[in-house]
Amino acid sequence: MACPVLELTQQLIRRPSLSPDDAGCQALLISRLQAAGFTVEPMPFGDTLNFWAWRGEGRTLAFAGHTDVVPGGNGEHWFTPPFEPALRDGMLYGRGAADMKGSLAAMTVAAERFVAQHPDHRGRLAFLVTSDEESTAVNGTVKVVEALMARGEHLDYCLVGEPSSHRHVGDIVKNGRRGSLTANLVVQGIQGHVAYPQLADNPVHRAIPALNELVSTVWDRGNAFFPPTTMQIANIQAGSGSNNVIPGELKVQFNFRFSTELTDGQIRSQVEALLQRHGLRYSLDWWLSGQPFLTARGELVEAVVNAVEHYQEFTPSLETTGGTSDGRFIARLGAQVVELGPVNATIHKVNECVSAADLQLLSRMYQRIMEQLVL
Amino acid sequence: MACPVLELTQQLIRRPSLSPDDAGCQALLISRLQAAGFTVEPMPFGDTLNFWAWRGEGRTLAFAGHTDVVPGGNGEHWFTPPFEPALRDGMLYGRGAADMKGSLAAMTVAAERFVAQHPDHRGRLAFLVTSDEESTAVNGTVKVVEALMARGEHLDYCLVGEPSSHRHVGDIVKNGRRGSLTANLVVQGIQGHVAYPQLADNPVHRAIPALNELVSTVWDRGNAFFPPTTMQIANIQAGSGSNNVIPGELKVQFNFRFSTELTDGQIRSQVEALLQRHGLRYSLDWWLSGQPFLTARGELVEAVVNAVEHYQEFTPSLETTGGTSDGRFIARLGAQVVELGPVNATIHKVNECVSAADLQLLSRMYQRIMEQLVL
Repeated sequence: MACPVLELTQQLIRRPSLSPDDAGCQALLISRLQAAGFTVEPMPFGDTLNFWAWRGEGRTLAFAGHTDVVPGGNGEHWFTPPFEPALRDGMLYGRGAADMKGSLAAMTVAAERFVAQHPDHRGRLAFLVTSDEESTAVNGTVKVVEALMARGEHLDYCLVGEPSSHRHVGDIVKNGRRGSLTANLVVQGIQGHVAYPQLADNPVHRAIPALNELVSTVWDRGNAFFPPTTMQIANIQAGSGSNNVIPGELKVQFNFRFSTELTDGQIRSQVEALLQRHGLRYSLDWWLSGQPFLTARGELVEAVVNAVEHYQEFTPSLETTGGTSDGRFIARLGAQVVELGPVNATIHKVNECVSAADLQLLSRMYQRIMEQLVL
Repeated sequence: MACPVLELTQQLIRRPSLSPDDAGCQALLISRLQAAGFTVEPMPFGDTLNFWAWRGEGRTLAFAGHTDVVPGGNGEHWFTPPFEPALRDGMLYGRGAADMKGSLAAMTVAAERFVAQHPDHRGRLAFLVTSDEESTAVNGTVKVVEALMARGEHLDYCLVGEPSSHRHVGDIVKNGRRGSLTANLVVQGIQGHVAYPQLADNPVHRAIPALNELVSTVWDRGNAFFPPTTMQIANIQAGSGSNNVIPGELKVQFNFRFSTELTDGQIRSQVEALLQRHGLRYSLDWWLSGQPFLTARGELVEAVVNAVEHYQEFTPSLETTGGTSDGRFIARLGAQVVELGPVNATIHKVNECVSAADLQLLSRMYQRIMEQLVL
């Protein structure tokens, strides 16, 4: 029994599209969408292929996704090579099966079926696809969104196909994401010999009381949509490797995942005040990789919940936890943004896989969302 | 005017004896000592040349030193190449001028003069010279001392030529050294994604309260001979470099310079208790690179103080501060150990230098010490 969603997913997995190399995935999707009557506008930026495709006009529902994948890692540990899809016990294996070539196939087939059944649909159905979401994401969705904003394009709804589900497809839907803010702190001291600490100034000793306060700070308590803001020290380094040299500087990198209870500006001020209170000599660089976004109840959330409930025995849980996604960029267009995709248990891991039945179900859910919003 | 101390120092500097390469320095010293009637026993161990030389019998005064030097570093910043000695404004420049080829020349010439004036001196005058003090020091003085102990050799006094002086030769004499104990701590956590801290266990966050207590601990208050014990974190490292990964382990290396108020065992127990009190999962390796030693007042200290006072306008200050030296090994022979050498302002630095007049004075001081103890 040939399933068009599985077949297309397998064709995409065979194309080893390591970020930002698209490896022919988008050409395949474009030919399918063009055959279904979509107008396709390639929007390459730098080393990254992207495209924007649309069919119809009016109220716009865009499906968003990425063709690039993370590396296969140690191929010896896969039972099938990462770019040779294999079906076993109802699971489709291969790099990108869950993140997110399966979703791309599901949305493409859903669009084909929707258009075939409703060639004169009322609203505008669109696709925003990039080949760099997993890597620096500099020339991907963010650039496409800026180009669309510059020419006054309007998006009402955006469904991102990121693997949002936990155990069953649709059990978790992301209706927002926390912001991500990274601090690069360098604490200055004076290098010296450990035998003469009075002639040196150990930046590690200076910084530890401040770091102790930093790790014990409660930043907020979250809200109805967001878990509490978290801070994690990801990297810390000082020292030359020698056991008799007092280091001259300490580098600390820490990252905030923050709720809508705080702005990045408030976090910056609070951290700076803490460091100054401890009298440190330091430099501090900030990198805001994403503002938080939230799509509270509305047409899109309602349509997604309805689609999940139609095909599953449960009501999806709306969550805002986890990493960032390209949804953070698309939200800037003023669109309602929701993420719904397959189970994420194996993403970025060896033997990444997705349930074949889930992919078929997901494609039906996507189609039902189209029917609610652009029919 | 030819000065034999300066000439010999220059000959030694021209031999680029980077640890443990002796580069011919010991052959030169040996030929001089043999000409002065010394019996010389080469005692090579592994990659390191050492020798033990003696003249006479009975009460033993040994002079100890090392022929190896630290690298020249960035030669461009020297005004003379590091292994081409140059005299300028009364200063002799070159790698090892102060640490400690100048001392070796001063003690060799002092012995030649002493022997010439007192060919039938009563006690035993000896030399213990190694070519690895600056590097690992594994096959140097420690091995020679073990061999001497194994055959029942006895040393009464040992004068180490390490550059002990601060502004004027003899202003500071070291009559002991602190112990040095290094801890290699690895704190275990659970690696994870910064977006899901509840699934990980950040070892940096776990360890910081313990490190905060460690850096604020007062270990002792020192005593009449020793400054208070100090602890310095020399190296700290955690993280993969990525800003979105919670590290799985934290490595911290810290070093104690400890007085005779504490034993290394007491320090170990106290640190282990602290770490356990904070509930850390950790491993901890210790490396004791030197027990503290102390030579309180006695014949050697008296002779050294007398020699300095005879040639200078001041009384030397007896101190136990600073790094370790090979004196820690020689003290195990039961000898009184004192360090007296040139001004240490430029040791291990670019344009290392020593005052020519100081070297001549130092040689006279060494001779006067011989006259008091083995005449």
